[in-house]
Amino acid sequence: MNNILPGIPDEQFVRGEIPMTKQEVRTLAMCKACIQPGDTVIDIGAGTGSLAVEAALLANAGQVFAVEKEPEGVRLIGANAARFGASNLTVIHGEAPAAIDGLPKADVIFIGGSGGALTAILAAADRLLVHGGRLVVLAVTVETLHETLQTLAANGHYHTEAVGLQITRLRQAGRKNMFQAMNPVYLISASKEEDHVR
Amino acid sequence: MNNILPGIPDEQFVRGEIPMTKQEVRTLAMCKACIQPGDTVIDIGAGTGSLAVEAALLANAGQVFAVEKEPEGVRLIGANAARFGASNLTVIHGEAPAAIDGLPKADVIFIGGSGGALTAILAAADRLLVHGGRLVVLAVTVETLHETLQTLAANGHYHTEAVGLQITRLRQAGRKNMFQAMNPVYLISASKEEDHVR
Amino acid sequence: MNNILPGIPDEQFVRGEIPMTKQEVRTLAMCKACIQPGDTVIDIGAGTGSLAVEAALLANAGQVFAVEKEPEGVRLIGANAARFGASNLTVIHGEAPAAIDGLPKADVIFIGGSGGALTAILAAADRLLVHGGRLVVLAVTVETLHETLQTLAANGHYHTEAVGLQITRLRQAGRKNMFQAMNPVYLISASKEEDHVR
Amino acid sequence: MNNILPGIPDEQFVRGEIPMTKQEVRTLAMCKACIQPGDTVIDIGAGTGSLAVEAALLANAGQVFAVEKEPEGVRLIGANAARFGASNLTVIHGEAPAAIDGLPKADVIFIGGSGGALTAILAAADRLLVHGGRLVVLAVTVETLHETLQTLAANGHYHTEAVGLQITRLRQAGRKNMFQAMNPVYLISASKEEDHVR
Repeated sequence: MNNILPGIPDEQFVRGEIPMTKQEVRTLAMCKACIQPGDTVIDIGAGTGSLAVEAALLANAGQVFAVEKEPEGVRLIGANAARFGASNLTVIHGEAPAAIDGLPKADVIFIGGSGGALTAILAAADRLLVHGGRLVVLAVTVETLHETLQTLAANGHYHTEAVGLQITRLRQAGRKNMFQAMNPVYLISASKEEDHVR
Repeated sequence: MNNILPGIPDEQFVRGEIPMTKQEVRTLAMCKACIQPGDTVIDIGAGTGSLAVEAALLANAGQVFAVEKEPEGVRLIGANAARFGASNLTVIHGEAPAAIDGLPKADVIFIGGSGGALTAILAAADRLLVHGGRLVVLAVTVETLHETLQTLAANGHYHTEAVGLQITRLRQAGRKNMFQAMNPVYLISASKEEDHVR
Repeated sequence: MNNILPGIPDEQFVRGEIPMTKQEVRTLAMCKACIQPGDTVIDIGAGTGSLAVEAALLANAGQVFAVEKEPEGVRLIGANAARFGASNLTVIHGEAPAAIDGLPKADVIFIGGSGGALTAILAAADRLLVHGGRLVVLAVTVETLHETLQTLAANGHYHTEAVGLQITRLRQAGRKNMFQAMNPVYLISASKEEDHVR
Repeated sequence: MNNILPGIPDEQFVRGEIPMTKQEVRTLAMCKACIQPGDTVIDIGAGTGSLAVEAALLANAGQVFAVEKEPEGVRLIGANAARFGASNLTVIHGEAPAAIDGLPKADVIFIGGSGGALTAILAAADRLLVHGGRLVVLAVTVETLHETLQTLAANGHYHTEAVGLQITRLRQAGRKNMFQAMNPVYLISASKEEDHVR
């Protein structure tokens, strides 16, 4: 049996016009999420589905729900799920938090995009996340980074950590290797306390 | 069965005075190495053994050789292998390239430290690496980064890529989150061509 | 006549236990502040006085007020002003915003430290800053970065820009050059509109 | 009299298809070069002329030679010199090192581009640079960074330092501020010893 390891190379995904979470960031998001085979996972703002597909391969005895509001994204998630044989991945076309109403309790929730409704999404995610579950937020704006940190601290039953990732690719140009920056992303990862009596 | 995922939190390792490869860098090094259960892995300049332990857990039907010249490192690698039950991890007290003479062919070779003998180590690693194998070098100096890229390009039968990782931890100080930089590391990862006729 | 250029090397300052704004960050803060010879400048949270001294050398026909609450800082600012002959630099021992009450209108205001009173300090700074004046905030926490951006946007009569600075020093270790990260700093610079009718 | 300060905003330059050294990097390059009014300055690989124009404004009683091989660059340098009234800036259409033969001794030499002839350019620059002069190299590839450091160390009469600059712009997107990376640049700055007897 092969190891199922996160970190599918970017070029293996079907990609459209939608920005995709790059391999290095995806791998670290998976690392922080610590997905187990039987887990239920929700990916909010799933984009091209690259995170959701990696999650589905890891949670191969569980299930993954990928929520995306853009039709182009919904199409790409489906195409990528098919390409990687992720039959346990369900695409939900809609906008969070409304779109996650009625989903089962989750062991892991990713928030990759929030479309301006971050506070409501964090509250809805908190209701769905089991005790001991992990929340992983990818922030590409100051506002998302700040609001996530504030909301989790105010909630009081999360153990939170955050890292900023500045990845530089070395691009071969003739015999030289040029430094080429990718845009920074912050990963906020939080585990919900088993027992949240304070 | 649980997923075996790289990314053990730093604080779970026994640590001495020797610098340890941090979780995020370790996770990405594992991602680039793509270790399979039956793999033979060599870690040159193994330090505290954090990479070697992660490798040993992934190559759980294979074997890992951790080469380290410092007695303190050798002690830490042993302690960490014991802590994580990595019975397939063998510590070799010595200095590469001499210390890797006589080791079996490897599917994956990490070079975490080279102590000034990088050219000779890269040559010895090339002899030990199977076709289709992966070489992952962690560079914290301009010289290691440059020499690795040059040597692999000159060799001609590697497909090489490299990324620079600048990780920023957010440290909680009262109600504030301070940006705290970790030192940059470059990961050079190379796969050796199956068929190296040029 | 010599050019007066910002960018005094770090080691030329008298330094205590207080963290000092490093040369590269200081130079860029000066660049964004665009100080002219006759300017009045206020530096809030002046620390070791490195920014205030550079400002005083540039505003050599003007005046600089350096506000600092720590006695150790007050002492260092005085020592550095003396070392660089900055007789136009006045140290104010106290805590902003109270400590800047009664200061003259300013062409340039730096906020290097805010000790938890950032909202009140930004409001006080806005009252003191002339139209056409420049405000430069150095942020080392997510909260300072976010609150400064939000407050300036809400105020509505600032043209604001912000950059994150991740500086890596190359430290010579034998024949090698090690990558050594300095902590990231964000510089938010804002110019107050000449005419703030909206 | 106004202060002459480096750090002209990017949008004030005439820009073509040629990449331009951005304000923050330019400002720090000027800081490291420490140009005085009577200085003679050579800018090799001058591109759009943004460094050369800043140098010409600082060396307003001296002279600046901007060497560029691309006709488009030569045109842009001329246009930018005219826009900023830099009548002390001479454009040389040609390729270094040949193109700098016959130039007068220089107090400051910038190397912004080397087109594959870096070793020869560094040797020629060394011959032209006065004792006590400053050399500033902007490196966007691993190879330029490495070769500059090696050559200067081997030469033996330079005091060298180097910093990596990773600048992130915050781009306003609606009410949010997105992190947007600029490509990393390394600045190697070296001062030539007054007395190089060893």
